[in-house]
Amino acid sequence: MIIEKYDRRAKEIDSLLCVGLDSDFQKLPERFQNTPLPQFEFNTYIIEQTHEFASAYKINSAFYEARGEQGVAELKMTADYLRDHHPEIFTILDAKRGDIGNTNNGYVESALDWLGFDAITISPYLGGEALAPFLSRVDKCSIILVKTSNPGSGEFQDLQLEGRPLWQHVAKNVAEKWNTNNNLMMVVGATYPEDIKTAREIAPEVTFLVPGVGAQGGDVQSVVQAGKRKDGLGLIINSSRGIIFAQDPRTAAEALRSEINMNLHNLR
Amino acid sequence: MIIEKYDRRAKEIDSLLCVGLDSDFQKLPERFQNTPLPQFEFNTYIIEQTHEFASAYKINSAFYEARGEQGVAELKMTADYLRDHHPEIFTILDAKRGDIGNTNNGYVESALDWLGFDAITISPYLGGEALAPFLSRVDKCSIILVKTSNPGSGEFQDLQLEGRPLWQHVAKNVAEKWNTNNNLMMVVGATYPEDIKTAREIAPEVTFLVPGVGAQGGDVQSVVQAGKRKDGLGLIINSSRGIIFAQDPRTAAEALRSEINMNLHNLR
Repeated sequence: MIIEKYDRRAKEIDSLLCVGLDSDFQKLPERFQNTPLPQFEFNTYIIEQTHEFASAYKINSAFYEARGEQGVAELKMTADYLRDHHPEIFTILDAKRGDIGNTNNGYVESALDWLGFDAITISPYLGGEALAPFLSRVDKCSIILVKTSNPGSGEFQDLQLEGRPLWQHVAKNVAEKWNTNNNLMMVVGATYPEDIKTAREIAPEVTFLVPGVGAQGGDVQSVVQAGKRKDGLGLIINSSRGIIFAQDPRTAAEALRSEINMNLHNLR
Repeated sequence: MIIEKYDRRAKEIDSLLCVGLDSDFQKLPERFQNTPLPQFEFNTYIIEQTHEFASAYKINSAFYEARGEQGVAELKMTADYLRDHHPEIFTILDAKRGDIGNTNNGYVESALDWLGFDAITISPYLGGEALAPFLSRVDKCSIILVKTSNPGSGEFQDLQLEGRPLWQHVAKNVAEKWNTNNNLMMVVGATYPEDIKTAREIAPEVTFLVPGVGAQGGDVQSVVQAGKRKDGLGLIINSSRGIIFAQDPRTAAEALRSEINMNLHNLR
């Protein structure tokens, strides 16, 4: 099972840290901007600096698509590099895709076969029927947006029905109806720790991908307290800008791993 | 205003027809599969067969991403071809994107600048705050998923939240809050004509992109009756497989345009 790949790595290196390769070309150090493969070169540098502390890498497709086919080619090179050099690390394409049934096959082929990621983030708006091409890939993991980290995520996600907000209906359906292949995870933003706590009650066994610590203001202690699973796993805590654009990405990754563990071990 | 581009074209050729270039490589006629640029070559053939009857072309990104950077390159060539040869026709990238604020800039750059489409489809789940990079592009059009055409679209879209289904909350917010730049449209599926009617009441002035006639089972008469705006416009009726994989795409496009007009003019 693909989810075990993450659990195995997390246990092995005692880390719930995911490094987000949001390698926006405009923000790259000049020495990378001037290379022929700027995003790929930057990514390999970051990967080599941080892999000891990383149980997962998350690559947001938008920053690569922004550069057209060249960016897509460097995204592919990065995915290949991770698979070749660090096959034990869990890889996530953060693409937030979701179309009607047949059409999703195209995204499945692109993200999971051609690029070869272990996991892809998908949007729930079209419902589980439409998302079947993702959900039925038992060899891969789909990570469904449940409660997103952005300030305005409540506009629809917090609308109430029968005493609970929309995002909780999504969480319930994912945990209780969609996850028949045991290959699903959920996105729950670090910026809403109360909601992480509720999500953990709704889905005690599901692993949460938690973006939003660091630049977006999410707090590690709250995330760990609210979201950790009974076995001490169940969280993939992502930091992007706070690590990759730090003066010293290695130190930043190590520090965040330590902060997560400090909170995790105090609680265990 | 970019939306006027569509209205102008629709009036000029008396057509509300959008041809969907869902040019799935696996389904292309063999004579195209064997060319060096199969999707691009097929698209130029379809465009030349159908452009007299088309007020818009919609290209679904998934079918191109499935072929990796090569598919993305042919998507770009198709977009360039349309702009060079048929600049009066409205172009839509059907990508159903949607991420948190800053990240959406990448998709904006890719779809609206690099590829240069007039419009892009986006998913509402993250809320208007996150989608600002799309909505604020006053020179471009964003088309928000409201009620999608797939059989299972009701799983969340029909949940009765605070007295009305989710999709109606989305429709109201798009029409009444998000559309300050008059650059938004909505997706409402042909397979739910009752919902098209309600959407027209909620948003009397907004143009609806309507997928789902033909292969998905939507009925032209119901769509036109339920969705037409007072000025006889307000609809972009898309057919993909029913035209591009027809024995004779030109005849299929002309026939669908006629069927739309028959219903439209009987009603006026």
